[in-house]
Amino acid sequence: MLQINFTDMPRFKITLEYDGSRYAGWQVQKNARSVQGELLDVCYSVFESRQLEFYGAGRTDAGVHARGQVAHLDVPATRLTPEQIGMQLNAKLSHDVNILKVEKAQPRFHARHDARARHYIYQISKRRDAFGKRYVWWVRDPLDIAAMRAAAAVLTGFHDFRSFGDTETPEQSTLVDLTCLDVREEGDRLYIQLSASHFLWKMVRRIVGTLVEVGRGKMTPDQVADFLTKPSREPARLTAPPSGLFLEKVDY
Amino acid sequence: MLQINFTDMPRFKITLEYDGSRYAGWQVQKNARSVQGELLDVCYSVFESRQLEFYGAGRTDAGVHARGQVAHLDVPATRLTPEQIGMQLNAKLSHDVNILKVEKAQPRFHARHDARARHYIYQISKRRDAFGKRYVWWVRDPLDIAAMRAAAAVLTGFHDFRSFGDTETPEQSTLVDLTCLDVREEGDRLYIQLSASHFLWKMVRRIVGTLVEVGRGKMTPDQVADFLTKPSREPARLTAPPSGLFLEKVDY
Repeated sequence: MLQINFTDMPRFKITLEYDGSRYAGWQVQKNARSVQGELLDVCYSVFESRQLEFYGAGRTDAGVHARGQVAHLDVPATRLTPEQIGMQLNAKLSHDVNILKVEKAQPRFHARHDARARHYIYQISKRRDAFGKRYVWWVRDPLDIAAMRAAAAVLTGFHDFRSFGDTETPEQSTLVDLTCLDVREEGDRLYIQLSASHFLWKMVRRIVGTLVEVGRGKMTPDQVADFLTKPSREPARLTAPPSGLFLEKVDY
Repeated sequence: MLQINFTDMPRFKITLEYDGSRYAGWQVQKNARSVQGELLDVCYSVFESRQLEFYGAGRTDAGVHARGQVAHLDVPATRLTPEQIGMQLNAKLSHDVNILKVEKAQPRFHARHDARARHYIYQISKRRDAFGKRYVWWVRDPLDIAAMRAAAAVLTGFHDFRSFGDTETPEQSTLVDLTCLDVREEGDRLYIQLSASHFLWKMVRRIVGTLVEVGRGKMTPDQVADFLTKPSREPARLTAPPSGLFLEKVDY
């Protein structure tokens, strides 16, 4: 394989949005359409080179959307301005992936490692919705919002989220400072807002699934508190579907 | 053909929403998927009879959506309550068609003839939008909103909308009282709101296309005023795409 020295290449910070419905997630995969793969293909064509990298702040799962994903892009020396890069990529990108902003970045800027906070929103619909299949989780049962908020208060803060994370990467720390976990009601919709410096794999959807279980009256906030002290597979069983999840914003 | 006497059958008023993206319009057609056809198929199954009618207030075109279409439904004598009918239809309907409300109607109630006002909203995006392909018209040119509002003021009121209508049904009166034509700006979105007792075929999309032409600076409000006094094919040429259009509400 060709050895690429990325440090010699100009680096750009890219802010982008995508509708994840038709993709097998962010990350490049063999035999599946990924958002990163779509972006790389278009970059290969715009920069007429395969010596480049497109690295995202968060690896969203299949069906998960982004309104403000951030990535860094390393390209061969180019005369294109950041604005021109954005326009040329958008001219070739599929309609469901859209570059919002391109900025010149420091050579050492790293989309994932430098991220200080990630913000997600999960959309729930309390009714059947003709426009909702790809963008909401339709929860048929009535939900006790006060109980959901009580459970959210329990989870907010610095805790060991082992029960909500992935058991297959044990080397990763499971301590997370969940700085925001809000349940907002708006007509037939429920918006669950989550912020943290980082999240464990599937943690957002497992928290949402757990809150909904509390909302249904099938679990108490006290039982949720126990997940923070005793490892449990219960939140994994309750993982909310991907369609309602949006990566809203990444702070640096 | 079997003669059906609809006057003996219970009549229901149905309020429903649909995502028109996958349909060739409201109206039943041979060899094409229509919203009305989808509803009739499900009704045939729920009422175990083909002796029924599902008649809509407005025949939306291919790709046009509805958040508040109204129809009347005639069915054979049934023990189902209105609420049960709604639930049984929704249980079988495709995810992009959704019954919002079922009410017992007077036998003489007619969804189209009795409608007093129809309300539409047309969505325009001023930027590329990863979630927009099915739901907005992306207008790349900058738009002069004040000029669009001036042209909207010209069109509001009781006029001969012959230039905005369909020339193929000359028996229909082309006089329409356009009671509302508002241009609302919200971030990167533009919402054009239209109300009238009835609209001519494609009239909404031709008005929107004409307003956008004014917004682009390619036409003046005075030229728009001329369309109301001298028949012109110009608005037909400017017909806005169907994807941005939503039938919001029908008043009785």
